[in-house]
Amino acid sequence: MTAVNKWMIDPNDAVMLLVDHQSGLFQLVRDIDLPTLRHHVCALAKLSRLAKLPTFTTASVPDGPNGPLIPEIHQYNPEAVYIPRTGQINAWDNPKWVEAIEKTKRKTLLIAGTLTSVCMAFPTLSALVAGYKVFCIIDASGNWSKMATDITVARIVQAGAVPIDTNAVLSELTNTWNRPDAMEFAQVSMDHVVLPYRCLMESYDKAQSVQ
Amino acid sequence: MTAVNKWMIDPNDAVMLLVDHQSGLFQLVRDIDLPTLRHHVCALAKLSRLAKLPTFTTASVPDGPNGPLIPEIHQYNPEAVYIPRTGQINAWDNPKWVEAIEKTKRKTLLIAGTLTSVCMAFPTLSALVAGYKVFCIIDASGNWSKMATDITVARIVQAGAVPIDTNAVLSELTNTWNRPDAMEFAQVSMDHVVLPYRCLMESYDKAQSVQ
Amino acid sequence: MTAVNKWMIDPNDAVMLLVDHQSGLFQLVRDIDLPTLRHHVCALAKLSRLAKLPTFTTASVPDGPNGPLIPEIHQYNPEAVYIPRTGQINAWDNPKWVEAIEKTKRKTLLIAGTLTSVCMAFPTLSALVAGYKVFCIIDASGNWSKMATDITVARIVQAGAVPIDTNAVLSELTNTWNRPDAMEFAQVSMDHVVLPYRCLMESYDKAQSVQ
Amino acid sequence: MTAVNKWMIDPNDAVMLLVDHQSGLFQLVRDIDLPTLRHHVCALAKLSRLAKLPTFTTASVPDGPNGPLIPEIHQYNPEAVYIPRTGQINAWDNPKWVEAIEKTKRKTLLIAGTLTSVCMAFPTLSALVAGYKVFCIIDASGNWSKMATDITVARIVQAGAVPIDTNAVLSELTNTWNRPDAMEFAQVSMDHVVLPYRCLMESYDKAQSVQ
Amino acid sequence: MTAVNKWMIDPNDAVMLLVDHQSGLFQLVRDIDLPTLRHHVCALAKLSRLAKLPTFTTASVPDGPNGPLIPEIHQYNPEAVYIPRTGQINAWDNPKWVEAIEKTKRKTLLIAGTLTSVCMAFPTLSALVAGYKVFCIIDASGNWSKMATDITVARIVQAGAVPIDTNAVLSELTNTWNRPDAMEFAQVSMDHVVLPYRCLMESYDKAQSVQ
Amino acid sequence: MTAVNKWMIDPNDAVMLLVDHQSGLFQLVRDIDLPTLRHHVCALAKLSRLAKLPTFTTASVPDGPNGPLIPEIHQYNPEAVYIPRTGQINAWDNPKWVEAIEKTKRKTLLIAGTLTSVCMAFPTLSALVAGYKVFCIIDASGNWSKMATDITVARIVQAGAVPIDTNAVLSELTNTWNRPDAMEFAQVSMDHVVLPYRCLMESYDKAQSVQ
Amino acid sequence: MTAVNKWMIDPNDAVMLLVDHQSGLFQLVRDIDLPTLRHHVCALAKLSRLAKLPTFTTASVPDGPNGPLIPEIHQYNPEAVYIPRTGQINAWDNPKWVEAIEKTKRKTLLIAGTLTSVCMAFPTLSALVAGYKVFCIIDASGNWSKMATDITVARIVQAGAVPIDTNAVLSELTNTWNRPDAMEFAQVSMDHVVLPYRCLMESYDKAQSVQ
Amino acid sequence: MTAVNKWMIDPNDAVMLLVDHQSGLFQLVRDIDLPTLRHHVCALAKLSRLAKLPTFTTASVPDGPNGPLIPEIHQYNPEAVYIPRTGQINAWDNPKWVEAIEKTKRKTLLIAGTLTSVCMAFPTLSALVAGYKVFCIIDASGNWSKMATDITVARIVQAGAVPIDTNAVLSELTNTWNRPDAMEFAQVSMDHVVLPYRCLMESYDKAQSVQ
Repeated sequence: MTAVNKWMIDPNDAVMLLVDHQSGLFQLVRDIDLPTLRHHVCALAKLSRLAKLPTFTTASVPDGPNGPLIPEIHQYNPEAVYIPRTGQINAWDNPKWVEAIEKTKRKTLLIAGTLTSVCMAFPTLSALVAGYKVFCIIDASGNWSKMATDITVARIVQAGAVPIDTNAVLSELTNTWNRPDAMEFAQVSMDHVVLPYRCLMESYDKAQSVQ
Repeated sequence: MTAVNKWMIDPNDAVMLLVDHQSGLFQLVRDIDLPTLRHHVCALAKLSRLAKLPTFTTASVPDGPNGPLIPEIHQYNPEAVYIPRTGQINAWDNPKWVEAIEKTKRKTLLIAGTLTSVCMAFPTLSALVAGYKVFCIIDASGNWSKMATDITVARIVQAGAVPIDTNAVLSELTNTWNRPDAMEFAQVSMDHVVLPYRCLMESYDKAQSVQ
Repeated sequence: MTAVNKWMIDPNDAVMLLVDHQSGLFQLVRDIDLPTLRHHVCALAKLSRLAKLPTFTTASVPDGPNGPLIPEIHQYNPEAVYIPRTGQINAWDNPKWVEAIEKTKRKTLLIAGTLTSVCMAFPTLSALVAGYKVFCIIDASGNWSKMATDITVARIVQAGAVPIDTNAVLSELTNTWNRPDAMEFAQVSMDHVVLPYRCLMESYDKAQSVQ
Repeated sequence: MTAVNKWMIDPNDAVMLLVDHQSGLFQLVRDIDLPTLRHHVCALAKLSRLAKLPTFTTASVPDGPNGPLIPEIHQYNPEAVYIPRTGQINAWDNPKWVEAIEKTKRKTLLIAGTLTSVCMAFPTLSALVAGYKVFCIIDASGNWSKMATDITVARIVQAGAVPIDTNAVLSELTNTWNRPDAMEFAQVSMDHVVLPYRCLMESYDKAQSVQ
Repeated sequence: MTAVNKWMIDPNDAVMLLVDHQSGLFQLVRDIDLPTLRHHVCALAKLSRLAKLPTFTTASVPDGPNGPLIPEIHQYNPEAVYIPRTGQINAWDNPKWVEAIEKTKRKTLLIAGTLTSVCMAFPTLSALVAGYKVFCIIDASGNWSKMATDITVARIVQAGAVPIDTNAVLSELTNTWNRPDAMEFAQVSMDHVVLPYRCLMESYDKAQSVQ
Repeated sequence: MTAVNKWMIDPNDAVMLLVDHQSGLFQLVRDIDLPTLRHHVCALAKLSRLAKLPTFTTASVPDGPNGPLIPEIHQYNPEAVYIPRTGQINAWDNPKWVEAIEKTKRKTLLIAGTLTSVCMAFPTLSALVAGYKVFCIIDASGNWSKMATDITVARIVQAGAVPIDTNAVLSELTNTWNRPDAMEFAQVSMDHVVLPYRCLMESYDKAQSVQ
Repeated sequence: MTAVNKWMIDPNDAVMLLVDHQSGLFQLVRDIDLPTLRHHVCALAKLSRLAKLPTFTTASVPDGPNGPLIPEIHQYNPEAVYIPRTGQINAWDNPKWVEAIEKTKRKTLLIAGTLTSVCMAFPTLSALVAGYKVFCIIDASGNWSKMATDITVARIVQAGAVPIDTNAVLSELTNTWNRPDAMEFAQVSMDHVVLPYRCLMESYDKAQSVQ
Repeated sequence: MTAVNKWMIDPNDAVMLLVDHQSGLFQLVRDIDLPTLRHHVCALAKLSRLAKLPTFTTASVPDGPNGPLIPEIHQYNPEAVYIPRTGQINAWDNPKWVEAIEKTKRKTLLIAGTLTSVCMAFPTLSALVAGYKVFCIIDASGNWSKMATDITVARIVQAGAVPIDTNAVLSELTNTWNRPDAMEFAQVSMDHVVLPYRCLMESYDKAQSVQ
């Protein structure tokens, strides 16, 4: 896959942005089951490390009722850089956020944010206007209502962002099974994305062993 | 956030249009829970006042079975101007409606209307043709069937209107938490939009107080 | 409303096309409740007569298990012209069908057809290529699965057809309440489209009478 | 209605028990929309005061993550008595709880508790064994999954408790409209239980006023 | 079928009770689609006449926002007797209601009432205590929430009432196709209960005619 | 498993009753997907032959729009005996039906019938009164609405019939895997009941073969 | 809580039975999300060890496509005893299974089994007949269809088993927070049962730390 | 229908691509019922043979837990060519795959693949960039979550692929009923796509025979 497929992720040009995945905001999520959302965010944290993507996180007033970022993000990707907000609602309104991204020289943004309608959508729209190629990871964001998610997907697609799901992100970042760390990517999938795959493995191993 | 982000609301250029939120028409709504719809409309009324948006309301034959406008709209925004219709189905067919909007010199319309398929969609399409930038607040409108809402969202997006939800509207109008009236915007969110947030605050306050 | 609003129906330029609303095919419908579908088709039949739209119907092998057209269509609009198919799947492949439409000199097509994926979608796509403006009445068609309907709506929107629901069609054809036959249009709505409206009227009349 | 209808509530023999309606536990609720649950609990608080029912509340470790009782309960019924738990999971295992109920000399318990499976169900089962007549207010409790609620309803019915909803409780406590405070009961219904009723009133008042 | 099958309706011993099927209360119904509910009530009205069942109706404050009884009931069964309430919530608390039923000397009650939780359930529970055999027509009542309907079904079954649906009522009242008026019963089914049957007839008639 | 477990099927005492599984009535089914229903009925036909159960079928006016019995029943169990109805709605009202069952000397009835509310429920209730032990195979019947099925399950359970699903029937009739024809039972399961099992087998066989 | 509450679990008299939680059978589950089911089974394994319950597992042909037991069961409770089946469908038909249970001298069985309709239900029914008190853990079993689960719950309740959910089991086994290992039970809840509780803890800890 | 309708399939220019329809991957599918998916894939296999479309299949590590291709594909279309992958995730990254397609000289691709988000979407996006016209058969692919399918449909439509369902594919490939093998296409529909059609035929044949 060449780096110029305009519709797909070039892992060498990508930046991972994880916005406001906070314990309090998580409680407001109504478009996806909370443990599933948590798993998907963990997946993105692990993937960003495996794929060596510059990764930036931020949180909205984490000292207040919104709560702190879930710990797994920085735990699974110690290289991720936390950039505090200073009152902005739209992360893109924070100069430090934009600077950090510009410094990477990369032009592909992978973004997930809680709540989808605001913290995923606003930076997306701003980044599109600023010329970036943006992928919105809808099922790793979490929104306050299902209707709001359908509305938001239509909105970001209209503006030119690519809607994507966590499994597709994982697969595009893995890119090929012919890589030495293929199994690490596969493990992320089994642990956090396509969890029922574990049963396939258990059945398979047993079937082989009883021969 | 600059005023020229084509995909987002410029509060200084916006007009709030609330069409036919009437007690009888509300009874026909099947795409969203009625108390939720009522809350969202209240939120828009309060937000339009807080953000000082010129606000216009209208009703379809309120003296008949469609019923009167719900009282909270003008109660929460006494500055809102009611422009009666004179037989038009499409509010945009009412010269006084169009005049009032033109007088504001603003080119961004935020519109919600019951029923979504007709009273939100028709003025939207007419306004787009007239060169306005239009945001359709889908979850503050209310439609006669869920299928009709999906159809209508596809229709207005095709025509170039931006589909948006009440929480995104609130956040774009708030724009930043660094403003003296930030808490008033937050209160609207807690009272009318993201109601579960109240539990987050109660838990937070208690956790701090028991230290 | 001027006739040049590209996104809306010009009743003076419209033709109503009702394709394959047959008793057997109706039994295959899984995306909308059957009595509701039947009502919507009845509405379109009555509306086409009230709005004096040239109306054409067709059926797919009505002498076979697909069954006959439901009788209300020609009963409610005796002016509707039935054009038999001769083995074509896509009604637009039938020269007589295309001729009949061309003879009207009208360029706006309102189409509903069972099953949506095929009998509404195929003539739609052909007509778009032939330069017509097409409105697809999704909730008066009826499809073999909900997933297929979502897929089909995306497909015809991509091609440039306007997705629309029966209530919006009714309202665009009515155009204004300031017309002598306004109540006939309203009656269609109450009888076939927004059935709960009847309760609003009954409550209203009683409330007034007990004063 | 005589007090001896074994299947219905005798307001003169009833005690209201509100268990663990706490801001943190509320966040775990997945079987009913949270604002709706909150409204129903408020309704019970107001009703218990209007119907002069001895009312007892308790909370599970409110100083911890479970959070404090929502304030409206004691705000709307200042007579309600809070009885702290001391480590018991089943409120009925707390001697003070049982004592307080016994002191009322009443044998009919109306109970709602978060989470339904545990905090509503356990005291219910214990109370039944102790000879009380118990009504479980399912839609004012709140449970961790819908499946768990179906299971719990089957469980408490099997044991002999009466499953009931908030509107039925309100109606049984009101008992008749021929009472001086009838409107206060009606107001509770409109404010917290059958919220769409407000639209009926607005339409009615307007219909009468335009005569 | 003998009249002594304890689990089934004896048409010669049955009384039809239709409680509060009012235009305003209908607007509060959330457990069944409103046109469907209306159809089912019409079916019961027609069936009670065809089966010559003593039929009693009542309404709750029909001069207020609850609205009037839907007209079809007395229109389809002119023999039905309307017994006004005088402030009672539970119809069984109205002596005239009980008297009228006692006068029939029949012991089997078929009851439907809006809202199910209150107006169908309360008279049911009272009648059971008074020794009647009661059938609750759940899908011809209409309730304020689906959860409340599940709760109410469990409640009345626990007390010994038989839960039943409109089609079963129709079939038990028809009892056999070997009766001169069999087609009238079948017509009720096609018009108001199993509406898709009409398509079966149309297909059948056509299939036979094209031979 | 002894024959005296009152809650389970004794294959040596069981009779299979398949009522009205007709092509027209199938079109009215709304509580289960039609191909799934058809599969379950096929399963019962095959099982009744494998388990050598006396099997009786009947149909309601198969020469009319209700249509003929689906052919697979008698095709898969040529021993099944068809007993025509003569105008009875309740199959149990047909003396020949009752006779045929009595002649078997068996007291356990397994019954499935379209529509569930009537053709499964009525003979069930009559049979219970006549002293039979009855198992209602709910997911092999097919009903006109989901609500009607919930109602009917509650009704037959109240009367003492055992509600059961097709997979449980298959497993009880198989009784043990230690029987020479075990694989025939397993094949029925894979072909008609738990269809996804086929994928498990394919994966298993392949896993073993690649060792 | 005394040990004689007939409706609740006496931890000192309970035995945990986990039947057929196999990787292949898990793939057939359609009534609950697979990761959730897996979590619940893990919870039961951990709980049985914490509460020192005699625990027995079995599997149906684990060397075949049904696959092996998921490893966590015996991993989390090394004391659990695996009792192979020898062709029986109903685990209770296996003399060794019954013996093992009898040897414990305990009379309360907690059972979960895949698939619910068969592997949870059959041993339940047999055990009830044998005089045991049985609790069916519905949401830790897993069934081939949702309809089959509703049917099965009705079936086992009819026979006298107590339907219960995993959170209620956890709470009854914990019994009181005043026990030295309380936190171990709480950890099971947070890790496997009420997963969103983790967010409550994270918010709480942070709120306290920022004081 | 001319071959140049840009929105529709030209059967003479089409290639069928069936990607990773493997027994293990099928177990991960959550957006469509598995037997239905299997039927749709069988339909495509039969259709590709009937319409003489060059057909290519591939599988992802079929010797591992993903399992083998379901056998019906090559069984129903012996002409289909299997092209193994060699570690690529995106089939389009496999030079042999691309070569095989290029050799056909056809430019219209019909693609279905498990899982939709990855194995249907990635080759689609690559093929679009390479200048092909691509039709994505959404309901013959199978995805790991419904949300992921909605996201993926939006994604491929944005890129210019045509979303299509199996019934539309069948109808476009059949093209007209005036062809000697029309009944073979109809049989595929009845056997694998619109299964309820079988009931229509049975009713029709019987209705004609009883005349």
